Amino acid sequence: MSIKIALAQLNFTVADIKTNTAKIIAAIAEAKQQQADLVVFPELSVTGYPPEDLLLRPDFIRQAQAAVDQIKLHTDGIVAVVGYPQQHGKRLYNSALALSNGHVIAEYHKQALPNYGVFDEQRYFNAGHQLCLIEVKNTQLALTICEDIWQAGIIARNREAGAEIILALNASPFHAGKVHQREEIIGEQVKQAGLPLVYVNQVGGQDELIFDGASFVLDQHGEVSFRADEFAEQLAVVEFVDKQPQPASIAPHYQTVASEYKALVLGIKDYVRKNGFQGAILGLSGGIDSALVLALAVDALGADKVEAVLMPSRYTQDMSNEDARLEAEWLGVKHHTIAIEPAVLAFNQMLEPLFAGSKKDTTEENIQARCRGVLLMAMSNKQGKLLLTTGNKSEMSVGYATLYGDMAGGFAPLKDVSKLLVYQLAEYRNTLSQAIPERVITRPPSAELAPDQKDEDSLPPYPILDPILALYIEQDKSASEIIALGYPQEAVVRAISLVDRNEYKRRQSPPGIRITPRAFGRDRRYPISSGYRGIAELN
Amino acid sequence: MSIKIALAQLNFTVADIKTNTAKIIAAIAEAKQQQADLVVFPELSVTGYPPEDLLLRPDFIRQAQAAVDQIKLHTDGIVAVVGYPQQHGKRLYNSALALSNGHVIAEYHKQALPNYGVFDEQRYFNAGHQLCLIEVKNTQLALTICEDIWQAGIIARNREAGAEIILALNASPFHAGKVHQREEIIGEQVKQAGLPLVYVNQVGGQDELIFDGASFVLDQHGEVSFRADEFAEQLAVVEFVDKQPQPASIAPHYQTVASEYKALVLGIKDYVRKNGFQGAILGLSGGIDSALVLALAVDALGADKVEAVLMPSRYTQDMSNEDARLEAEWLGVKHHTIAIEPAVLAFNQMLEPLFAGSKKDTTEENIQARCRGVLLMAMSNKQGKLLLTTGNKSEMSVGYATLYGDMAGGFAPLKDVSKLLVYQLAEYRNTLSQAIPERVITRPPSAELAPDQKDEDSLPPYPILDPILALYIEQDKSASEIIALGYPQEAVVRAISLVDRNEYKRRQSPPGIRITPRAFGRDRRYPISSGYRGIAELN
Repeated sequence: MSIKIALAQLNFTVADIKTNTAKIIAAIAEAKQQQADLVVFPELSVTGYPPEDLLLRPDFIRQAQAAVDQIKLHTDGIVAVVGYPQQHGKRLYNSALALSNGHVIAEYHKQALPNYGVFDEQRYFNAGHQLCLIEVKNTQLALTICEDIWQAGIIARNREAGAEIILALNASPFHAGKVHQREEIIGEQVKQAGLPLVYVNQVGGQDELIFDGASFVLDQHGEVSFRADEFAEQLAVVEFVDKQPQPASIAPHYQTVASEYKALVLGIKDYVRKNGFQGAILGLSGGIDSALVLALAVDALGADKVEAVLMPSRYTQDMSNEDARLEAEWLGVKHHTIAIEPAVLAFNQMLEPLFAGSKKDTTEENIQARCRGVLLMAMSNKQGKLLLTTGNKSEMSVGYATLYGDMAGGFAPLKDVSKLLVYQLAEYRNTLSQAIPERVITRPPSAELAPDQKDEDSLPPYPILDPILALYIEQDKSASEIIALGYPQEAVVRAISLVDRNEYKRRQSPPGIRITPRAFGRDRRYPISSGYRGIAELN
Repeated sequence: MSIKIALAQLNFTVADIKTNTAKIIAAIAEAKQQQADLVVFPELSVTGYPPEDLLLRPDFIRQAQAAVDQIKLHTDGIVAVVGYPQQHGKRLYNSALALSNGHVIAEYHKQALPNYGVFDEQRYFNAGHQLCLIEVKNTQLALTICEDIWQAGIIARNREAGAEIILALNASPFHAGKVHQREEIIGEQVKQAGLPLVYVNQVGGQDELIFDGASFVLDQHGEVSFRADEFAEQLAVVEFVDKQPQPASIAPHYQTVASEYKALVLGIKDYVRKNGFQGAILGLSGGIDSALVLALAVDALGADKVEAVLMPSRYTQDMSNEDARLEAEWLGVKHHTIAIEPAVLAFNQMLEPLFAGSKKDTTEENIQARCRGVLLMAMSNKQGKLLLTTGNKSEMSVGYATLYGDMAGGFAPLKDVSKLLVYQLAEYRNTLSQAIPERVITRPPSAELAPDQKDEDSLPPYPILDPILALYIEQDKSASEIIALGYPQEAVVRAISLVDRNEYKRRQSPPGIRITPRAFGRDRRYPISSGYRGIAELN
């Protein structure tokens, strides 16, 4: 006895219901061609995930329903399991429907609604309370959705109810290491219940989130018998004989840094594509951050879609310009040079009557950064190209960036990438092909907004700063806990104080790509007006 | 038999636990002086509301617990009911504690956790399931928290359990008309149960939220027997004889426009104070929006703390400069004039080689707005004054604003104020004293970024635009529903298309003050990458 199950790991655009529907219908046809008995799509496949507050719009919910009614007509001789937001009276459910021969043959409502991290599902959905089994070719298949199977109990309950194979529709966002976590935790549940499981994940970038695909099939012992590619669309068919999955292709996991690089490339690519930009531009300073963003953008969009602008000031060293040009040439990217001096001079003269007698401070540094912002935005506006900002997570954390200056831009690829990881990613990229000049990697980092300025003049060295930031921001550790781990008190105090006082900058920063368990996006909601001081307990 | 209950309507700063604790202890002392038997504080009074993701930090929860342990020591001869986030093992509750004579005499866990609009309580808290009655002077008092009493059932259940008076701790944010809604809906619940109720609300601005106070006491028929001031701190004592509230002072409700004006003033005042700014600056254009913001800022901070900057361009009409100066003089505000031409010229020359052959478009308009942004931010940076942006909700909705230009700033007082309401507020302000020159109110609105430019060249007239925006954004109405209400299809299509495509601008806008049921803050979470088109159904 055999049943063939297709896993449709697709890249949907949130709320582009028309395109998503066409994709689903095409995938059903392909699954039929491949002799599949059943095709499983990701969670909320019709709308893409997460539709956020569009779920509160009645017209949006109606459009999703109409799409399902249309998809239904394309299910002759196959069972298609799709996800969509389903209205029942006043209640909205995160639902999975099994469609076949033009009919809805079963419906399931997600039971476990995640409401932590990036997830707000209890804002929108009511929880379901019932199991849902469908029979296909004498096999009992249980429908589940994402968070359901992370919780102990639901697989066992389905087994008691007679399930032989678990189907799981997912929209599980990437962070580094998440693929292993998924297979391990779910594998453990599967092993305990002794039932095979088909896990189908969405793929693609959606604003700050990356969905990495990496769908898989586990056998009854929790072992992987099939794994789809990471970061790519794939329609794969896995055969079950006597309810057991037959060995199929197992795509290898990327190493951590490679997976982060892939995630960033996909994030840029999809943000540009899904928002209809003509390409991307960025300021190329000769520093490591913009060097990495340029390489990522070229890998995401192709060299012909990317444009780099060098904007030297009187503080820019020659090697910065040389290295920036060299990288642009290596990568085959169009580049321009505009010295910012005339605009800086104009502003300084205009402000002179007001600033007479006051000392130079970061105000003057910010003016330089903002002149660059004005130039880049003008080029972005004129050409319809997305301006990529180049700041990294370490800078975003401590506010080492100028609002409306180097923070200006529509998308921040490195927003969740610490400075140390920037170096690792740059070195990784250079193993693929010549991209980032060696000197960019080895020279000490500098904002070049004042004579002989170095990051370390204002900040603890990154090998000390970055782990402190991760402990404080991503793990909610207190100052004294971090000091107890061996970090110097002075550095901890400096780092934490800066994080606390720069919430206002982060609130106005462009969206960026999440690659850690906690980025500065929907997953970190801090007040700006706040008396919280992480260092208070030290006093 | 008499019992005296104090309502402590206080202005807390989120996470400033030390100051909040001192305030609570001082209020307990004052309540004792006024012979109160019991003093009731707002929801989460120890931490202020809403602490957002600080609630995920164990050190923050420990600090709140330590504060309660300290407050407890100041409760000799009185019962104090305070709110704070209470950890029990792995569970966190939104709790109310009754403290007396150095001990906790009762604890209550909020049962109804709002997770809609601006609220994310299910992200943090577990729901309680038990009632909590305390006996004071032979009277049975039930503890409840905010959302609890909006739901039918809990007052009745407390009555069954023997409650004679309901105490409700609240942090209920303002929007126009909310005061009436509160008294009506809760009055209805009270009337049905036949029990008097003491409602204590927080007051003050917290980032985007305004808490308006307006605490009240309802008798068993749901009639108001006491009402505290709106938008001000107050400690009031209400006496109950034979479980019935004795008539006390009833502060009048402000008229709608006056209440909105008061809310905006309080919002600016608290944002400046709670974030430690030295005052505020703004660009004064001669238009109505900046005129209103100047008046609000002066009323919030005093004229000596406010500075206005006129930044004319070649497109600025003389009357704009005249009116701006006149208003600054009327209000006694320091003002400067800086013509932006030199900087605009510098940028245009720097960009000329790149833009040669291309047509002038909004790029050139944006450069002007961004030059103003650079100047204002330089002045803000130099003096530590908060830059107020002057854009209104209509502009934020349709993206009629320049990112990093006129949108640059730390706080946007009019972010939730429609253009029509801007006019109403300006006229209201002029009834208090001479503030905004008449011509500013009567001239047609213009961004003055191009020759003879008027808002109506690009946008439907505001009397048509504003109601369309409210229906679409605040009420989730579809395009066809709005047209069916009688609005011209062309205007609806234009307005909705602009709203849809400008999410990216709003994502980077500064926080502003919420005065409607749905602002562009935590209460509206839309994707940027989105295929949703409100006008799709018309095609």
